[in-house]
Amino acid sequence: MQKGKQSVLFDKPIFIETVSSVVGKKESEGPLGELFDVVVEDEMSGKENWEKAESALLEQAVDKLLVKTRYKKEDFRYMFAGDLLGQLIATSFGVRRYEIPVFGLYGACSTFGEALALGAITVSSGAANQVIAAASSHFASAEKQFRFPLEYGNQRPPASTWTVTGCGAAALTNETQPVAITGITTGKIIDYGVKDSMNMGACMAPAAADLILANFEDLGVDEKYYDCIITGDLGIVGRKILIDLLHEKGHDISGRYTDCGIEIFDAASQNTQAGGSGCGCSAVTFCAYIMKNITGGKWKRVLFVPTGALLSTVSYNEGESVPGIAHGVIVENLSSQSN
Amino acid sequence: MQKGKQSVLFDKPIFIETVSSVVGKKESEGPLGELFDVVVEDEMSGKENWEKAESALLEQAVDKLLVKTRYKKEDFRYMFAGDLLGQLIATSFGVRRYEIPVFGLYGACSTFGEALALGAITVSSGAANQVIAAASSHFASAEKQFRFPLEYGNQRPPASTWTVTGCGAAALTNETQPVAITGITTGKIIDYGVKDSMNMGACMAPAAADLILANFEDLGVDEKYYDCIITGDLGIVGRKILIDLLHEKGHDISGRYTDCGIEIFDAASQNTQAGGSGCGCSAVTFCAYIMKNITGGKWKRVLFVPTGALLSTVSYNEGESVPGIAHGVIVENLSSQSN
Repeated sequence: MQKGKQSVLFDKPIFIETVSSVVGKKESEGPLGELFDVVVEDEMSGKENWEKAESALLEQAVDKLLVKTRYKKEDFRYMFAGDLLGQLIATSFGVRRYEIPVFGLYGACSTFGEALALGAITVSSGAANQVIAAASSHFASAEKQFRFPLEYGNQRPPASTWTVTGCGAAALTNETQPVAITGITTGKIIDYGVKDSMNMGACMAPAAADLILANFEDLGVDEKYYDCIITGDLGIVGRKILIDLLHEKGHDISGRYTDCGIEIFDAASQNTQAGGSGCGCSAVTFCAYIMKNITGGKWKRVLFVPTGALLSTVSYNEGESVPGIAHGVIVENLSSQSN
Repeated sequence: MQKGKQSVLFDKPIFIETVSSVVGKKESEGPLGELFDVVVEDEMSGKENWEKAESALLEQAVDKLLVKTRYKKEDFRYMFAGDLLGQLIATSFGVRRYEIPVFGLYGACSTFGEALALGAITVSSGAANQVIAAASSHFASAEKQFRFPLEYGNQRPPASTWTVTGCGAAALTNETQPVAITGITTGKIIDYGVKDSMNMGACMAPAAADLILANFEDLGVDEKYYDCIITGDLGIVGRKILIDLLHEKGHDISGRYTDCGIEIFDAASQNTQAGGSGCGCSAVTFCAYIMKNITGGKWKRVLFVPTGALLSTVSYNEGESVPGIAHGVIVENLSSQSN
């Protein structure tokens, strides 16, 4: 089951039974707009503050998942979930009413990959037959947490990204389904010393490169093994850095590579600068766009690499760098019908 | 392997090979002072801020663990770690130099239980042979994060607790050792609506009661199954509430129950009010005191229940309650010599 230094290939695949995605109005107006399950027109979700609005996204994603899945709520033994806010308050208050045992996770914007990985390990161990993996972010709660008050109306440099308002949730199971998690590669914290909180793509690209190289080495494969390699939220700037870093190592991924942050917005018309970001970015793009392409057979095997910038206002103001992390998940269509 | 609704009994036990503990000066002056591996006399650890001082605690605990263990650093495939600070900066910056794949966890002060549980599941699955579980807290970084500037010199009510400056780390393995994790019970978020951030024992006691009752029910046992039941940081106030809540359900745990927050300080002479708290409280008490008593044979079977209060200044200032969570870990001495 263990492969190389950082990877696991599951002896028995862990299946993705169903997924759900909830997004805000801006995300619904982007190129993937029609693929999301629920669009929340009110950015406050009828709540009195941004944090509760983000918790509401999580509730709506889990509610939708529980409608779409053929499993009962009681069948899900654990929930693996996280968000960007201090002390994971969007998650803590969002999952409260489900009464499902919960493992709180923090991997910055890579959290959905961490949740899929730990969820898959847990099902693989036999400790659960079904689990839920989820991650959320909200543009306004993230700006409040990490940057400026919205009322300040700060300018956004070209390398900055736009935090996705959204939540994705996935139901993992040990029962056969067409699409499965067949392996994972878990990331180390990689710090190239970048200190620009408005250029998170540059902070995260080295972690993504390290993770993808580790995956290739551990499995004895190269980029041609995958129909698509998809990072979480490197955006336009980080994309170029990643391609360059891998090119230096002899790998040209450019023909089979994309990034959730690039796919989710039309940067030119939506004024999102380098692209989308946040835990919700890779989560909703996976649950809508990536799963659709795998289920439909366009891609047989994908390396999904949510990326995280370990940014905090405290460490940033203390002069620290912004290290990156990435969590890789191999997702395959195992049904013979697909092509 | 699955037992009841929330528990797991591992088909093959997951062993605790070695543990390490690092504490501050105040903790070294408490009743458990002689048991800790490393005492950091300088509360700043020679760093320029509290957050880096906390990262240094984590580094010292992991360094010590790597000295004590018979495994090489490369044998540890994953680190499961977390702390109380926003975006887990103590952990992120503390684990950076080890180049071990890391899963960042947040369960408030229950994080060490979450790390042991997920570490044990992961070893059980075969995804790793050895992993490290760790959690840290620091009095000054926690006060800065959650309460008042130290310079303000606020008064501390009797129900308040004192965040432990310390970090505990454990090496888990699939190779036979005397002491093992034989099962886990994973907590749900329990919210009785308590809103007093200076009385976290009251916030967490219902979660601890719910967890202990779930453990009893899932395993078909009662308090007599354990030589000792040990919560994380309920303190004197939470202890009484927990005993009362369980008494209402027909269980008298008072004769075989203690709390890490009560054990670690002499509240009367050390001016720590209701007791110790923080991720580090249950982590260092486990790695020093509890492991010593299990290894030495005083206790054959322990239910270790780190408790967390899901407190954030943002949610608190927005009028939210402080929900609790608890993560239960069954630790046993499996060597026939012990008694």
